Amino acid sequence: MNRRLGMQTVYFKNPPVIIGRNHLVGKKEGQGNFKGYFTNVLKNDKFGEKTFEKAERKIMETLIFGAIENAKLKPNQIDMLLSGDLLNQIITSSFTARDFETTFVGLYGACSTMAETLAVASCLIDGGFMDKVACATTSHFATAERQYRNPLELGNQRPPTSQWTVTGGGCCVLSSKGIGHKITMATFGKVKDYGITDANNMGAAMAPAAMNTLIAHFEDTGTNPEDYDAIFTGDLGKLGSNILRSMMEEAGYSLGINYSDCGQMMFAENQKPYQGASGCACSASVLNAYILSQLDKAVFKKVLFVATGALLSTVSTQQGDSIPGIAHAVVIEGCTQCL
Amino acid sequence: MNRRLGMQTVYFKNPPVIIGRNHLVGKKEGQGNFKGYFTNVLKNDKFGEKTFEKAERKIMETLIFGAIENAKLKPNQIDMLLSGDLLNQIITSSFTARDFETTFVGLYGACSTMAETLAVASCLIDGGFMDKVACATTSHFATAERQYRNPLELGNQRPPTSQWTVTGGGCCVLSSKGIGHKITMATFGKVKDYGITDANNMGAAMAPAAMNTLIAHFEDTGTNPEDYDAIFTGDLGKLGSNILRSMMEEAGYSLGINYSDCGQMMFAENQKPYQGASGCACSASVLNAYILSQLDKAVFKKVLFVATGALLSTVSTQQGDSIPGIAHAVVIEGCTQCL
Repeated sequence: MNRRLGMQTVYFKNPPVIIGRNHLVGKKEGQGNFKGYFTNVLKNDKFGEKTFEKAERKIMETLIFGAIENAKLKPNQIDMLLSGDLLNQIITSSFTARDFETTFVGLYGACSTMAETLAVASCLIDGGFMDKVACATTSHFATAERQYRNPLELGNQRPPTSQWTVTGGGCCVLSSKGIGHKITMATFGKVKDYGITDANNMGAAMAPAAMNTLIAHFEDTGTNPEDYDAIFTGDLGKLGSNILRSMMEEAGYSLGINYSDCGQMMFAENQKPYQGASGCACSASVLNAYILSQLDKAVFKKVLFVATGALLSTVSTQQGDSIPGIAHAVVIEGCTQCL
Repeated sequence: MNRRLGMQTVYFKNPPVIIGRNHLVGKKEGQGNFKGYFTNVLKNDKFGEKTFEKAERKIMETLIFGAIENAKLKPNQIDMLLSGDLLNQIITSSFTARDFETTFVGLYGACSTMAETLAVASCLIDGGFMDKVACATTSHFATAERQYRNPLELGNQRPPTSQWTVTGGGCCVLSSKGIGHKITMATFGKVKDYGITDANNMGAAMAPAAMNTLIAHFEDTGTNPEDYDAIFTGDLGKLGSNILRSMMEEAGYSLGINYSDCGQMMFAENQKPYQGASGCACSASVLNAYILSQLDKAVFKKVLFVATGALLSTVSTQQGDSIPGIAHAVVIEGCTQCL
């Protein structure tokens, strides 16, 4: 049975239900603009561990156990863990997967991972291959800075185009059955590269990928931006989302006040966020703490969630390569029986 | 509709067909035990590029274009590229994806990637979400040594437990329709970690994961090792596959002469392979050059292909962590109309 709409979009005949969710963020994130929504906030970004990498693993472990509990399930009732993160060889995900007696598929989509895992999991569930899937992702400011830029101890200055990697993460448990918000469609992204080479300007590098996925989604589904109560991109930041707005305008699509970027919204002005937040955890924590709770209250009924990723590595940057971007999207429709 | 068998295995109602394939290997691999089967051999492992990383990208690009041509398709007829590799942030895959006007999902499963991409792609195709998917993976001795161990220029000695990362890769194009060998089942792996900390002994680290996937497969499907004409593991090497044989024996499953390991088979004795070959390209090139051609000739009719991955990073090794392993499996049944 064909479940495709156009070139990049698929729809779900029996839309997978978000039966469990969890978020966790660092101290700085907990003091930002989502203060009232982030209820799980770390006191210390090392989370009682000896290294930041082990702290990030503990974040993912905590996230997944919490989301499974929130779904009123036991860990052994989960069929598959789909996760990814920013660290080399996605060690946060792979090492965390040891703690779960479930199959594991590791994905790498940089900061697009939350939407990427939801999209793939929804296909596996609607296709009848899996019944309950945990989708998780994390990032950590200290592990990402050390890996992609410089160790924190160097105390480097941040350029004005830079973004701040979110410490934390999010996890959703999807199921073929149950009551909750549903994932009704997914649009898979294409890799786009407009030649940006500045690893401190990732918003600009990711904007073309976000545009490609948005336009593909609107064309494939015959919808327009105003058909959604809210459209969120992942972590384009201020500059990146301004670029996206003007590129979309040129392409004939006006992104109105229903469009926001999780990275732009994350930090308050007094936190000196420069262009805003980034990292896998940026859109993942906003989805699980803010967006889904707005769906709970029916403030939003239909959301287009577009997580964006910059697919660079330190080696590609050192070898002078530009930064390819990707964006994956899912449509989340609010539970009508939950109100 | 439920397409699950037991805990880890899924079956395909309309089994996806391998309509195109391609392999490419380095000079050393071309002189090994598969000499007569490797028809696409590089003259120079830099492949005319300035860096080994760019050479690896060119290998992946060449592989995918070749497999699409072999499928008698044009690149714009491919719906999705599913690929992964060993490099940080899977840059080989992400950067290669720029050259294709297709959706992209990046996977990370280390050397289990060939089976991982085939398993996920088969679900997407049989579920009706995608029609034609290219599954690809590569590795390169020089990029892997530089990243995981030491730059080649250091001229380090290799310990006796070490394996040699294969330069090259493989690509299969899967389709919902067509004539060719079919993927009839897939068994997704769990992450297993028996506490091996030696990054030069990855066969031992991966053997428990291979055992888990094999036993899950046999239990889920009610089959035994002798029900397959051939069972291949990815790159356990001599030591790792001996460990697997004895662990399986203890668990009540006898792996007979129909069992082989691609890593153990790759190099000839005079090539000083120590434990044998490893890398994503090891099982990927053997699958596309040797295993599928044995299916062509009906030497094999039903093959269980189990690619194995060691999920370590340099940071995890430096921080004293052990090495988690994973193995994903697919069942490939020979085309009956092709003879």
